[in-house]
Amino acid sequence: MSLSIAHLGPAGTYAEQAALAYADWYTQSTQQSRPILCPCPSIAQALLSTASGETQLSVSPVENSIEGSVSVTLDTLWQLDVLKIRQALVLPIEHVLIAKTDNLKSIQAVYSHPQPLGQCQTWLKTRLPQATLVPVSSTSDALKYVDEQGSIAAIASERAAQLYQLPIIQRSIQDHPDNCTRFWIISQTDALNAISAPANSPICTSLAFSLPANVPGALLQPLKIFNDRHINLSRIESRPSKRSLGEYVFFVDAEAALETSQFQSALEELTSHTEILKVFGSYPLIQIAGTRNS
Amino acid sequence: MSLSIAHLGPAGTYAEQAALAYADWYTQSTQQSRPILCPCPSIAQALLSTASGETQLSVSPVENSIEGSVSVTLDTLWQLDVLKIRQALVLPIEHVLIAKTDNLKSIQAVYSHPQPLGQCQTWLKTRLPQATLVPVSSTSDALKYVDEQGSIAAIASERAAQLYQLPIIQRSIQDHPDNCTRFWIISQTDALNAISAPANSPICTSLAFSLPANVPGALLQPLKIFNDRHINLSRIESRPSKRSLGEYVFFVDAEAALETSQFQSALEELTSHTEILKVFGSYPLIQIAGTRNS
Repeated sequence: MSLSIAHLGPAGTYAEQAALAYADWYTQSTQQSRPILCPCPSIAQALLSTASGETQLSVSPVENSIEGSVSVTLDTLWQLDVLKIRQALVLPIEHVLIAKTDNLKSIQAVYSHPQPLGQCQTWLKTRLPQATLVPVSSTSDALKYVDEQGSIAAIASERAAQLYQLPIIQRSIQDHPDNCTRFWIISQTDALNAISAPANSPICTSLAFSLPANVPGALLQPLKIFNDRHINLSRIESRPSKRSLGEYVFFVDAEAALETSQFQSALEELTSHTEILKVFGSYPLIQIAGTRNS
Repeated sequence: MSLSIAHLGPAGTYAEQAALAYADWYTQSTQQSRPILCPCPSIAQALLSTASGETQLSVSPVENSIEGSVSVTLDTLWQLDVLKIRQALVLPIEHVLIAKTDNLKSIQAVYSHPQPLGQCQTWLKTRLPQATLVPVSSTSDALKYVDEQGSIAAIASERAAQLYQLPIIQRSIQDHPDNCTRFWIISQTDALNAISAPANSPICTSLAFSLPANVPGALLQPLKIFNDRHINLSRIESRPSKRSLGEYVFFVDAEAALETSQFQSALEELTSHTEILKVFGSYPLIQIAGTRNS
């Protein structure tokens, strides 16, 4: 039976692009039959389908270099307790402007997902100052609004424009050339290790913790525990605990494998300085054609 | 001339509610004429209008207890360099479901701003599993889509429902009872000190810094500098530097006034451990009827 991969749909989203790249890599490196892609209406629903066993993997965006964290991915991992990160991949993001006109002045509104609208805001302000920006649930969804009169444009990927046979009127409209998104490949915690991790790829471990309430400087101790063991943290992200304003859960990516003795000793010490501590997995960044090594 | 206050519009948004509460407080505490509210199409445009001198103040959401940071407020402060936080206020958030039907089963889609959709997700999943969730640019904007057939609902505030004369079919649909949003009152850096800070209110100082690239454990030192001086950090938030994936700007709220000698000495030491360091202001949390002391 083929592996099933859930992702934010419909066809043409960046999440689908990441899932396609992953499916290519998986087929080549395992010689198994090609995985089946399962588009879902939201990122949360994709993760829930993996948590419930409907799908075996989810390809979920974690972080964009411009717009920052995808909080639903972090919050869902923290809440569900049954998901594990298996691999990571980085996809370069190139946005195109899609409309049925060659005249930028005729465009009155631009539809897209909130992240691409944020990633193109300077370009939009300069070149389309008259246009209203309308956030919708996915870049592919935005394409539905592109009208015959050329008054409504959408921002999506080149692949989406091709899939829906719509004209691209401007390429590379993202404000920063180095725009990329990191995705996690996620399975159930106890899933079989069918997905072979490539050798000689650096391993990263992701975890999250909440801190005892009202202890000044409480974050300092966890950071010191890693620093004392020369474990570099490549990312620290705070999310609300959802209990009270000012209470947070900290998400951390550490540049070390969970199995190492330093990491195990760090975890042991962490338990006495944190309230709740959850490890989401220890995994490699996989190198895929069309994705990036960063 | 009356004070002008920019906020995310149109009438009926939570930002307008915060601006109204602030205008009441200002009128009472300064005995000046009532400020004029200036609704703007986006949070960024409200802040830009204050930066350019078109308006004197902006009331800008910073953080919600459930959905977390409002990144556009943080990013705009970091980028513009001419804005200063003068005060903070906390507004309790109560969402209502608005539709022209009494039958939840007839609702096929729910429109709202992405933050309220996130804050009501469990309620929506349980009570309206059939409905598609559609993010739009503001809660007030969502009301435009409420249809006569009762197939489209919106999530907004009670005030918005009243303003637009639309029926409320369910109150308090937010998933967490303790749902509130913190707002900052922002002026130009060199604006006259027309806005009197109330005495005996605790003062908080907000700042942000980037760290030298590729220095492991670089965040530890800034945290230690505050901890050594017994200055508690009530919030630490990372945002992408927008240069490269894995490079961040850290936003920090410290529970101390900028003028104190400890804070000055902390700042001095910070400059040698950070790359760019910006202080956004030292300001009180103001107590307003209908807002919260937390």
